[in-house]
Amino acid sequence: MSSVQPPDLDVDYSSQEVTEEQLGLTHERVVAITDALDDGNIELVNELVDYLHTADIADLMEQITPDHRHLLIDATRGLLDPEYLVDLEEDVLDDVVDQLGTAEVAAAVAELDIDDAVDVIEDLDEDEQREVLRAVPEEERGHIEQALSYPEDSAGRLMQRDLIAVPAFWSIGQMIDYLRDSEDLPEDFYEIFVVDPGHRPIGSIPLNKAMRTKRPVILSEVMENEPVFIQVETDQEDVAFQFQQYDLTSAPVIDASGRLVGVIMHDDVVDVIHEEAEEDIMHLAGLSEGNIYSTVLNTSKRRFSWLLINLLTAVLASVVIAQFDAAIEEIVALAILMPIVASMGGNAGTQTMTVAVRALATRELTETNARRFVNKELLVGVANGVVFAILAGLLAGGWFQDAALGAVIAAAMVINMIVAGLGGVLVPLGFGRLGIDPAIAASVFVTTITDVIGFLAFLSLAATFLI
Amino acid sequence: MSSVQPPDLDVDYSSQEVTEEQLGLTHERVVAITDALDDGNIELVNELVDYLHTADIADLMEQITPDHRHLLIDATRGLLDPEYLVDLEEDVLDDVVDQLGTAEVAAAVAELDIDDAVDVIEDLDEDEQREVLRAVPEEERGHIEQALSYPEDSAGRLMQRDLIAVPAFWSIGQMIDYLRDSEDLPEDFYEIFVVDPGHRPIGSIPLNKAMRTKRPVILSEVMENEPVFIQVETDQEDVAFQFQQYDLTSAPVIDASGRLVGVIMHDDVVDVIHEEAEEDIMHLAGLSEGNIYSTVLNTSKRRFSWLLINLLTAVLASVVIAQFDAAIEEIVALAILMPIVASMGGNAGTQTMTVAVRALATRELTETNARRFVNKELLVGVANGVVFAILAGLLAGGWFQDAALGAVIAAAMVINMIVAGLGGVLVPLGFGRLGIDPAIAASVFVTTITDVIGFLAFLSLAATFLI
Repeated sequence: MSSVQPPDLDVDYSSQEVTEEQLGLTHERVVAITDALDDGNIELVNELVDYLHTADIADLMEQITPDHRHLLIDATRGLLDPEYLVDLEEDVLDDVVDQLGTAEVAAAVAELDIDDAVDVIEDLDEDEQREVLRAVPEEERGHIEQALSYPEDSAGRLMQRDLIAVPAFWSIGQMIDYLRDSEDLPEDFYEIFVVDPGHRPIGSIPLNKAMRTKRPVILSEVMENEPVFIQVETDQEDVAFQFQQYDLTSAPVIDASGRLVGVIMHDDVVDVIHEEAEEDIMHLAGLSEGNIYSTVLNTSKRRFSWLLINLLTAVLASVVIAQFDAAIEEIVALAILMPIVASMGGNAGTQTMTVAVRALATRELTETNARRFVNKELLVGVANGVVFAILAGLLAGGWFQDAALGAVIAAAMVINMIVAGLGGVLVPLGFGRLGIDPAIAASVFVTTITDVIGFLAFLSLAATFLI
Repeated sequence: MSSVQPPDLDVDYSSQEVTEEQLGLTHERVVAITDALDDGNIELVNELVDYLHTADIADLMEQITPDHRHLLIDATRGLLDPEYLVDLEEDVLDDVVDQLGTAEVAAAVAELDIDDAVDVIEDLDEDEQREVLRAVPEEERGHIEQALSYPEDSAGRLMQRDLIAVPAFWSIGQMIDYLRDSEDLPEDFYEIFVVDPGHRPIGSIPLNKAMRTKRPVILSEVMENEPVFIQVETDQEDVAFQFQQYDLTSAPVIDASGRLVGVIMHDDVVDVIHEEAEEDIMHLAGLSEGNIYSTVLNTSKRRFSWLLINLLTAVLASVVIAQFDAAIEEIVALAILMPIVASMGGNAGTQTMTVAVRALATRELTETNARRFVNKELLVGVANGVVFAILAGLLAGGWFQDAALGAVIAAAMVINMIVAGLGGVLVPLGFGRLGIDPAIAASVFVTTITDVIGFLAFLSLAATFLI
């Protein structure tokens, strides 16, 4: 460990500024705040909220009821650091923006970094966007509108424009003096970009290298090559992949002519990684968006379309069953056993599909290994198909004292497990090739296939061999 | 933008070192490498691999067949930067380690940073761990063993021990001179810790602040308070939450007596965030682990237990159906329609459960808002239950020309959708309170509940009112 033990001197550490900021939002703190709101004790509310980090204020806004939220906004009007807006979920942000009013939102947005301002603005309705932007001072408005001119979810929207760029012929000493004398530096930066006269980045000096290098050294001698240049139009998923793959802290963003236009920071990318994983999880469960803050009406509406699709596919399965009504009337055990075959197929298919969807999202499933993966899932389907065929066959044969019935369910099980394995991997791969998000589309298709094939295989085998 | 345009001088930028490293692994590159391996052209293999970043070498190892992998390992023996080992999925790492042999793995591990070495070692079998550790040089072994003494998934395993700590009475100038003269600094650092004589952290100097501050200023005057101190035993999920919530770049790790023992970096936390989201996705689909590289046998085994549980719950549903065999014999339409009720409940339950599981994981669902969330899901269940009751009722009534049958399926649908909403939220909340991972447990329970209640409600209503 590179560490220096100070000599045993009588040092006064009390000059250290002690802030009272406390991190973390406890249930007790929330209750204290809502109680103070109920009592109309504005002073206490502000005292309690004052300690909180903006990220915790956002959590507070999200967790209390809309009524308390409105009281809180009124009680703290003009006093909160507007950065908390950036961390709000869309539904809550909409409510807060309505409550604050255009003028106050515009003032807040003008105070934020451009990337944060864009983050807030892009979540608003178009009408609200226009209204708020109109009230933002001209300079900030120009910057925000430029960022909004980049495609949604692109590097241009994610980047911050504040960065430090210096020429290659400067020395480390000149650079440090420049930093010490500048008033208007970005709040956070981890590297200093070296640019050519056309403002194209040609290298970078990570701060820890700058700190270690002696003053007379010329930047061009010590600058490092940027591992990654991000085009301003690049999708945020690609940005996130690069940060994760190459452990980046920050990365330069360039426009079509190679000029340095911004920088993306690791903490913005963390939010993207989180968002993308979240999207996959929600899509796999048939949710367009998932958050716990939306109203009953919005939640019901968002879930409706998926449930409607599911109703149609369930009816399709029923139509299949209806073809075998005579067989079911003759052998009622078929009705009792048929959900087992469909359910096992559905589960096996979902397992395979989930692995495939995630492997596509994390770029582990590629052109190189797709065929091998399909073959493997086929074999896994056969293996588990045989095992569960034996189990289900013994169980059904024993239950109804009918070996032939056991054989039929066993055969149907093998068929459906193989179909599940193949469907679970081919459906997401196919959607991926078509450029459709595999997470959202695959899940309906796979379970429809396993339901239909499950019922069809079991009932048609039964109708053929048992009657 | 804080940027400086250099004057129009004739500067020679060619002194810039141009590395040939290319980022990203294309399918063409993989094919070129496997072709060279097939041809036994070791020289070409090394030339092609030499360009790659260690993260891309890891991807290469993962994507090729085991046979090619073994050829690649032999062709590049002793030539690869061992850091690629850190990025390998467990199944592939096991294979690579077997192929490399203990001596070479030990040499590789000794070259890695301690946190990376731990990352590799903890993925090995216990026997392999012991063997490899025995072959690691004593000093590194001591450090690794100490890190391994912390609980799995704790901050102690995640942290790196290399950090810079200086006393508060130093000036900025002294600190910079110390950095310039030290040979043995960590490769990456973003802040310098200020410690008291007991090596307890009392503040920190972010590098960008250090760069901006004039030499005579004393550290105690400019140091900032650390927003977060992480205890060495803290679970990595909590670490990830703090980094994400407070946009941290690095954070000090302290032991029980408050001494500074390490530092956690943002890129290690990104991996944790990724891992935790991945775990939730896999657990929701009933997978203990999900990766596409494991063998057919391992994959089949890992999926077996979930499928077995599913077989048992499916049989439970069949037992419910069997209670109504007389009714089904009389009205075969019941067998045709009953999967619709169960399937709709299953889907609605999965939607709610997924939102609840994720909201618990991201700490949005808390003691404060749990009751409100339950009420909301109850209302959503009622709303969608009524809508789909009408749809299913009309459909079934029309299909079988039987209004009473339509009424029965409608009533069963309302009941099951409400049960699904309540089950979807109460089951994960309950498991969460019991300290059981809601993602892995909830999914079986919720679909079992909706299957059983779906069949039971529909068939018992039918038996009561239609026969």
